[in-house]
Amino acid sequence: MQPSLRLGLAGLGTVGASVVRLLNKHSKDLAVRCGRPIVLRGVSARDRTRDRGIDIGNVNWFQDPVKLAMDPGIDVFVELMGGASGPAEDAVRAALETGKHVVTANKALLARHGNDLARLAERKGVSLNFEAAVAGGIPVIKTLREALAGNSVSRVAGILNGTCNYILTRMEAEDMSFADCLKEAQRLGYAEADPTFDVGGFDAAHKLALLTSLAFGSEIDVDSIYIEGIERITLADIEAADELGYRLKLLGIAERTESGIEQRVHPTMVPKASAIARIDGVLNAVAIDGDFVGRLMLVGPGAGGDATASSVVGDIADIARGTALAMMGRPSEHLEPYRPAGVRAHKGGYYVRLSVFDRPGALAAIASRMAEKGISLESIVQRRRAPHAAVVGTQAPAEPQSIIMITYETTEAAVREALDLIRNDGHVADAPQFIRIEAL
Amino acid sequence: MQPSLRLGLAGLGTVGASVVRLLNKHSKDLAVRCGRPIVLRGVSARDRTRDRGIDIGNVNWFQDPVKLAMDPGIDVFVELMGGASGPAEDAVRAALETGKHVVTANKALLARHGNDLARLAERKGVSLNFEAAVAGGIPVIKTLREALAGNSVSRVAGILNGTCNYILTRMEAEDMSFADCLKEAQRLGYAEADPTFDVGGFDAAHKLALLTSLAFGSEIDVDSIYIEGIERITLADIEAADELGYRLKLLGIAERTESGIEQRVHPTMVPKASAIARIDGVLNAVAIDGDFVGRLMLVGPGAGGDATASSVVGDIADIARGTALAMMGRPSEHLEPYRPAGVRAHKGGYYVRLSVFDRPGALAAIASRMAEKGISLESIVQRRRAPHAAVVGTQAPAEPQSIIMITYETTEAAVREALDLIRNDGHVADAPQFIRIEAL
Repeated sequence: MQPSLRLGLAGLGTVGASVVRLLNKHSKDLAVRCGRPIVLRGVSARDRTRDRGIDIGNVNWFQDPVKLAMDPGIDVFVELMGGASGPAEDAVRAALETGKHVVTANKALLARHGNDLARLAERKGVSLNFEAAVAGGIPVIKTLREALAGNSVSRVAGILNGTCNYILTRMEAEDMSFADCLKEAQRLGYAEADPTFDVGGFDAAHKLALLTSLAFGSEIDVDSIYIEGIERITLADIEAADELGYRLKLLGIAERTESGIEQRVHPTMVPKASAIARIDGVLNAVAIDGDFVGRLMLVGPGAGGDATASSVVGDIADIARGTALAMMGRPSEHLEPYRPAGVRAHKGGYYVRLSVFDRPGALAAIASRMAEKGISLESIVQRRRAPHAAVVGTQAPAEPQSIIMITYETTEAAVREALDLIRNDGHVADAPQFIRIEAL
Repeated sequence: MQPSLRLGLAGLGTVGASVVRLLNKHSKDLAVRCGRPIVLRGVSARDRTRDRGIDIGNVNWFQDPVKLAMDPGIDVFVELMGGASGPAEDAVRAALETGKHVVTANKALLARHGNDLARLAERKGVSLNFEAAVAGGIPVIKTLREALAGNSVSRVAGILNGTCNYILTRMEAEDMSFADCLKEAQRLGYAEADPTFDVGGFDAAHKLALLTSLAFGSEIDVDSIYIEGIERITLADIEAADELGYRLKLLGIAERTESGIEQRVHPTMVPKASAIARIDGVLNAVAIDGDFVGRLMLVGPGAGGDATASSVVGDIADIARGTALAMMGRPSEHLEPYRPAGVRAHKGGYYVRLSVFDRPGALAAIASRMAEKGISLESIVQRRRAPHAAVVGTQAPAEPQSIIMITYETTEAAVREALDLIRNDGHVADAPQFIRIEAL
């Protein structure tokens, strides 16, 4: 049997504690599978006294994660601290510089510094593994990096944020508002006290940036991602989606187009019959289209200590077994600069919801503005905003009506221009809502 | 860059031809990803003259696959001939004996000789990779063998045969009989002229045997698998399932129980709301329950030349990159003998359909036989077999009635014993139908 693989682990939050429990519980089996024992030699966390329900009595304690990262007594540095810079970045750089392999769940760090860290790891001849950084327990990194090596990928699309998916699922199931569902998610621990990072789509964007690089062999470019969160989704949208045969999901989508690679995170209408429409609650799902494999879909828990620990330990096991791959599956020098395709050039169907003043000619004016921009409508539904207003005798002509349109394939630029014109015409009461439709 | 990885490929059917096309189309990208070119050095197939639409003019032709397997000019032998023994077995053994890595899509061969071949490969220090042998393009072998190394798996369950899933999907969607759907599947090339291997559940059993070994660290034991095909499924069952909130799928299931590991392939009622219920047509899906990851589900094309070629080339790329793992993720000496749990000990809910003579006391007698065996009923539906017989004036008391029961959790032994008693009582017109219910 080979010598032990010695780990230093920084960050003992939910995921870190689960990793320690897993390594203890399955130490024998892991040694058999990997041909060598995996042992935890050092840990680092902010608070040494906190009871985490795990046994780390005989493990060296490091107050400074950078010291742990550089310690000659470890072979692999496991970074579970989080944060796009600061101690996490310092420690990961220190580990790589001193020739340690790194396993991290830190999507923010990699979205920001991944290109640079990948080069550093290559120069030092060590692994930089990050399965846990995207979609929790789902092995999507391994699938893209290894299993699909023989494919040219045309699209990766996924539900990458469990908090958003939970909120959208609850809004639909319980007829609850976004605000109420968010409060519920916070109470259940599915959303942070400051939920912006999740509901604003930024967390999904970090993950998407990594998937894009892997899938298309391009450098990570998180700043090019078009991001819309779910804060503006109303019950009216969810109900209209339901009536029209769609469900609403926050998707991260990276897609090869003629002009470059589109990267976008936004609420999306998906056909009810599609598999991704059925992914509810805190689950994540990633669909990958490859030229030989066709479409694969991977579904599983996108967060949680244990599920994420499963991915962390999978990465550690790969290192223990001697598997060595470039971070993005290709040497960094072969990663092409990311060539963005502007979201305005995006082609697809659109859902549009307008609050229209109930005046003669309004609908005709709106329809002609759409036609002017070459947009054909697949369906149009007009109804009073407040259902009770339709009861006989309570007619209220001043109340704006809701007009919902589904367009055939068009460009985002055309939709935006038409809606600007419609708004300027003075027929709508507030900002038009529009949501992209994706045939997944 | 390292020297080329040289392949010898035996079998140029649909999958073999797709592999050659893939290697040609993506040769540059594969060389970048793997750090070395992958080159096809020799091929072998039955008919040299057949036009396969692929360019193999400059590749050495071997009439005898065993000669190709032993040729010192190759590093990897890719076996795509098929067959549980004969030339495929001879060639794979010859390749391993002479120190070649082997990549194969041959589930029948591995289900039969996998334990032995795994030992041989280990002794010779070479890889025996088989992603393409299970679920076509879905990377379920890699997921179990590598990504989930940190998990104890409690259950693997999947739709492992696209032919059966296609037939069941069509029966439900089109109200067509099993026989008519089978004919359609044969016309479309989804089913063989002799369909027994697919519709009888044997193909799914071969795949399940490999998944069981990987998931539970036990030796392959295909002969212990309890197998029921879909030939006895009638439209009446599919309609009753629909009414009761279930869909019918042929599942392969391997599950850890107190007494051992259950392995079974049979038609299964799954709740309509479950994700696996929505997997339609020729798609495959595999759900894996691990103690840390929770539940993962992988969905994708289970067959077809291109999708299968994606898996074959993924395996080749692993070898090119120097990844080396034992066939079942553990050294053979650590695989435990398979300890079967009898299907009679299986616990679960059951669907039972009886054709009952319309006589006073029949229902009471049936109900009391179920109670005698400790079986509680969740629901019971009684109806005339032929709907038109219910029209007023055409009363036909001699016509047997259909009685459908859903049981609460019980054992298979109890259900079988109760149904034997009911049959002996003389109340039923023909053999009772019973189908296991699985909460997936």
